[in-house]
Amino acid sequence: MTAQDFAQQALQELEADRHSGASQLARRCLGWVVGYVRVLGAVPTSTVDQLRSQVTGFAKQLQSARPSMAPIHNLLQQLIDLLNNLPPTLGDAISYIEEQAEYIVEQSEQAVLRVAAQARGLIKPQDVIFTHSISSTILEIFRRVADLPVKAIVTESRPGNEGRLLVEQLSSLAITTTYITDAQMGLFVGQSDIVLVGADSVLKDGSVINKAGTYLLALAARDTGVPFYVCCESHKWSEKTPVNIELEEKDSEELGLTPLPSITVHNVYFDVTPSRLISGYISENDIKKSFT
Amino acid sequence: MTAQDFAQQALQELEADRHSGASQLARRCLGWVVGYVRVLGAVPTSTVDQLRSQVTGFAKQLQSARPSMAPIHNLLQQLIDLLNNLPPTLGDAISYIEEQAEYIVEQSEQAVLRVAAQARGLIKPQDVIFTHSISSTILEIFRRVADLPVKAIVTESRPGNEGRLLVEQLSSLAITTTYITDAQMGLFVGQSDIVLVGADSVLKDGSVINKAGTYLLALAARDTGVPFYVCCESHKWSEKTPVNIELEEKDSEELGLTPLPSITVHNVYFDVTPSRLISGYISENDIKKSFT
Repeated sequence: MTAQDFAQQALQELEADRHSGASQLARRCLGWVVGYVRVLGAVPTSTVDQLRSQVTGFAKQLQSARPSMAPIHNLLQQLIDLLNNLPPTLGDAISYIEEQAEYIVEQSEQAVLRVAAQARGLIKPQDVIFTHSISSTILEIFRRVADLPVKAIVTESRPGNEGRLLVEQLSSLAITTTYITDAQMGLFVGQSDIVLVGADSVLKDGSVINKAGTYLLALAARDTGVPFYVCCESHKWSEKTPVNIELEEKDSEELGLTPLPSITVHNVYFDVTPSRLISGYISENDIKKSFT
Repeated sequence: MTAQDFAQQALQELEADRHSGASQLARRCLGWVVGYVRVLGAVPTSTVDQLRSQVTGFAKQLQSARPSMAPIHNLLQQLIDLLNNLPPTLGDAISYIEEQAEYIVEQSEQAVLRVAAQARGLIKPQDVIFTHSISSTILEIFRRVADLPVKAIVTESRPGNEGRLLVEQLSSLAITTTYITDAQMGLFVGQSDIVLVGADSVLKDGSVINKAGTYLLALAARDTGVPFYVCCESHKWSEKTPVNIELEEKDSEELGLTPLPSITVHNVYFDVTPSRLISGYISENDIKKSFT
C-alpha cells in the first residue's frame, strides 16, 4: 500500500465513523499517523525533511476532517509541534514520532480516568444519572460509579442510535437503566439527580458542541432544576467561538425518508449548548462552575 | 357480527392507532357508536332502554381507551348526554343517535376549519412554520396558508414517525419543507418565525398534552425567542389538571432495542407543556394569549 492510499483510507474511515466519541477518534488519528510514518519509512530513499513535511500534511488533513471535534485538532497539534524536534536520521525520526504519539495517547487515556475520578465525587449512592448519546468519558464514569450503585437514563440518540451501544455497556455493568426516545427527554429528566454529558468541543466562551439534542436536554434540565455537567478532558477545549464553528452534517439518507418533491432532509450531528445552561465542567484537573 | 365483537374490534383499533390525531379519532369514535347502534338495532327484540344502556356503556369504554385525548371524551360525552332524549320507539331512537352523531362530527370538522382561518391571521407571506408530530388541525392550517406562500420545518417524531405522513401532505401542497430528527429541534427552531402545534388535550391550567417532544420544542422556542402557539378546537379543552392525568405509554418494542438485562425501555407517547411556555391558544372562536 502506498502512503497516499493509506492516508486516503484513514481519512475515509474517520469521516464515516458515527459511533466513536471525539477523544477515541483523536487517539485513533495518532495511530493512523504512526501507521503512515511506517509506510513512509519503508521507502529507504526518504529524507527526514520529506518525512516531516508529509506527516504534517497528513496530520492537518485529519485535523480538518472532523471540525466539530476539538481533541482531534488538539492531540494532532501536539504531535505536529513536536515534529520540529525530529532527530537527523530517518530511523531515529520514525522511532521518535512513534514514541511521542504513544505518549500523547497515554496522556489522553489517563486524562479520561482522572475525569471519571473527579466525577465520582459528585455522585451519591442511588443517584440516577441522565445522559445523551455515547461518550467514552461518560462510559468511564459509569464504570467508576457502578458500585455505589447508580441508575441511568439513556436516550436512543437518533439517527445513529449510539444509545444502543451505551446501554449494552451499562447492561454488562449491571446498571439499572431506562432507555427512551430523544423526544422523551423532557418527560424523564425530572426523574434524574444529575445530567452528565461528554463533549466534542468546549468553545472559548464555555459553550459546548455535542451530539444534537444536548441543547434540548440542557434546557429541560434547567427548567426542571436538575444540575447539568459537561465531562471532558482539557484537550477538548478549543480556541473557537460559536460564530466560527462548523457543525458537521451527515448523509440525509440516515433518516430513511423516501425522497419527495419540495422536502429537504437535514442531518446535523451536533448542536451548541450555551454556557448559561451548564452547571459545571468536569475535567481531569478539577470541577469548574464557570468556564470563562 | 355480534355487538360485543363489533365493540371489541373498535376498541382494539382505537388503542392501536398511532398516527391519527385526537380529533380525527374522536370523530371515528362517533362512527363506531353509530355502527354499534346499527348492529344492536338488527336484533328486533331490543328495547330503547337496553339500547341507551348498551350505547352508553360502549361510549364510556371508548372514552377510557385513550385518556390523553380530550376530544374523544368530549365528543362522546355530547352524545351520551343526548341519550336522555331518545324517542320511545327503537327505529326512531336509532335514527336520532345517527343524526346527532353526524351533527357532532360536522361541528367538529367545522371547528377545525375555523381554527385554520384564525391561524391564517397570524401568518405572513414567506413565514417559516415549525411543527412537531402530525395533527389534522395543523394540516388544515397548512392547506389554508400554502398560497402565501409559507415554508415548513417538520420533525420525524419518533417512534411512530408521524412526521413522514405530514411531509407527504406538505409535499403534495408544494410547501418547501425541512425534515429533521427530533434531536435537531433546538438547531432549527431559530430558523422559524412561529411554532404551531396541535394538542391532544388542553388541561384546566392551560398546560398542553401533545406528542412527546412538544415540551422540548416549547423550551427551545422560548429560549430562541420564537412564538409558540397551540392550535385546537375547544372540544380539546379538558377539566383535568396536570396532577390527575395519565400519559399513555405504548409498546416498548417500537424502539427496536434488543432486550438486555437491567435495561427497561419506556415509550410514553405524550408530554405536558406548561402554559408559561405558550404564547397563545388558537381555537375556532379566537386567539387567547392566556388560557386561564
